[in-house]
Amino acid sequence: MALVTISDIRAAAALIAPVVVRTPLLRFDDRLSLKPENLQPVGAFKIRGAYHALARLPEQQRARGVVAYSSGNHAQAVAFAAREFGVPATIVVPENAPEVKIAATRAWGAEVVLVPMAQRESRAHELAEERGTTLIPPFDHPDVIAGQGTVGLEVVEDAPAVDVVLVPVSGGGLISGVAAAVKALRPAARVVGVEPAFAADAAESLRAGELVRWPAADRERTSADGLRAEPSDLTFAHIQTFVDDIVTVTEEQIADAVRRLAGRARLVVEPSGAVAVAAYLADAERWPQRTVAVVSGGNIDPAAYLRLLSA
Amino acid sequence: MALVTISDIRAAAALIAPVVVRTPLLRFDDRLSLKPENLQPVGAFKIRGAYHALARLPEQQRARGVVAYSSGNHAQAVAFAAREFGVPATIVVPENAPEVKIAATRAWGAEVVLVPMAQRESRAHELAEERGTTLIPPFDHPDVIAGQGTVGLEVVEDAPAVDVVLVPVSGGGLISGVAAAVKALRPAARVVGVEPAFAADAAESLRAGELVRWPAADRERTSADGLRAEPSDLTFAHIQTFVDDIVTVTEEQIADAVRRLAGRARLVVEPSGAVAVAAYLADAERWPQRTVAVVSGGNIDPAAYLRLLSA
Repeated sequence: MALVTISDIRAAAALIAPVVVRTPLLRFDDRLSLKPENLQPVGAFKIRGAYHALARLPEQQRARGVVAYSSGNHAQAVAFAAREFGVPATIVVPENAPEVKIAATRAWGAEVVLVPMAQRESRAHELAEERGTTLIPPFDHPDVIAGQGTVGLEVVEDAPAVDVVLVPVSGGGLISGVAAAVKALRPAARVVGVEPAFAADAAESLRAGELVRWPAADRERTSADGLRAEPSDLTFAHIQTFVDDIVTVTEEQIADAVRRLAGRARLVVEPSGAVAVAAYLADAERWPQRTVAVVSGGNIDPAAYLRLLSA
Repeated sequence: MALVTISDIRAAAALIAPVVVRTPLLRFDDRLSLKPENLQPVGAFKIRGAYHALARLPEQQRARGVVAYSSGNHAQAVAFAAREFGVPATIVVPENAPEVKIAATRAWGAEVVLVPMAQRESRAHELAEERGTTLIPPFDHPDVIAGQGTVGLEVVEDAPAVDVVLVPVSGGGLISGVAAAVKALRPAARVVGVEPAFAADAAESLRAGELVRWPAADRERTSADGLRAEPSDLTFAHIQTFVDDIVTVTEEQIADAVRRLAGRARLVVEPSGAVAVAAYLADAERWPQRTVAVVSGGNIDPAAYLRLLSA
């Protein structure tokens, strides 16, 4: 299976530069720095992969429009990217997705189709066929992975001596790209994935040496609604090749990280976006001097955010 | 009176680069971008001026230590900068300053001396004399102004066609530097200050053509605790020369801006840091296509922040 290369990621960086924020590294304490991807236009790193995937489509194909399925941030990212290119977007969203993410997707001008969680992928494929539009998958595509990999490229540019990069894991698009970039540019650095203990299928898969499937009902227990997907063969191949370890965090550790990110880093972060910082804070002494945590997103219902801050 | 020049500001940019975050511009909506200075190491732009002032001291003088008086963010900035240089810092803080700012100042290793608001300046001068250390003023110094001016330099670098820059005004150090930079690099752009209506002494002074003093008790009515200082002759000279207008915002507009910055920009911002965005939101149609608002700081007590978000 062909893996994404550093050349793919460098090419992606050039293509996405017009719309993606070059996020700085923010010092959190003496050993941890943050890569604040919640500051992207759609509030998450997903704009990198989605915009890159659209940028790589032949112009005539792109003009017919795009379809995506997503629990939230990828939906917004595809909607935003389609708007930038002036092409129509249809987003298939599970009915239980956070209201704030659905509203934001509509605000970017996309048509939103709500379906039961289990049907979202099949319905998106149907829509793409019916309408002759292109499906932009949330992670299972080399162009998406290469786009997300620009996060890793920037981390090493800004911290050439980085020791560890902590990355949230869901479908694995982000960590696949980040790990491909980091291992190419700074082989001595470790890349460590982080999952909620309630959705730790990738951690179990990495230990088992093969994809282990968890029932969706299990994965839906976590408050980190962006981390309920499972790796594909393509992302798992990247994880097996480039990722050193995947660790897990509890729901309480995630909530605590959300609060610490507000108070100490002045960042509004959704639970999914806070897991890498949660892994650091759970045992700060464990991590080396130059640790970077990817803060992957910040889209959270105001009421849910207030509840987290008040707890 | 000699005003700070663009050469001073460029020189400052080189000196502060090792510790200051090169904050990106963040798109807020189709016409407004944010300059998020709440992401600096001390949570405010103040690190730019304070670090620059220390960097410019002769090494032997700096080694004896520094003293500062401040309602908060300048205190943390001087404490942080002194720690970077490995020299002692003493900070004179008014007794009514937010607890979070006092704690953060101590956390950077500074000695904190609490005094009644009216005595903070005189006590700082006394301490500097007694101990033979150097007073780093919060705004009334060319090195501090030049450091803050790097905000304006970066704004024009990232948005060369900017039409308006909205900047919070308190003692005037930030707007003096920003306006000096913007008018040198992009004379067609307007620089507009923003004050709380409850502390609008600089707005009144600009209209009057001379410094008009407001009683401290009046200025203390605003929730924007970082905007209660008044301009000096030096900063007012910059304001008269470079600033096009100063507008005011209400307490309710400030609170609303704090909430919108959390929900839409994923930034934790203190009331003082939100006034420029408040001025934009108060009448968005009034501002031209390419408006930039400086989000100056994000240090707010967690309880006070929760109250604001809940309102």
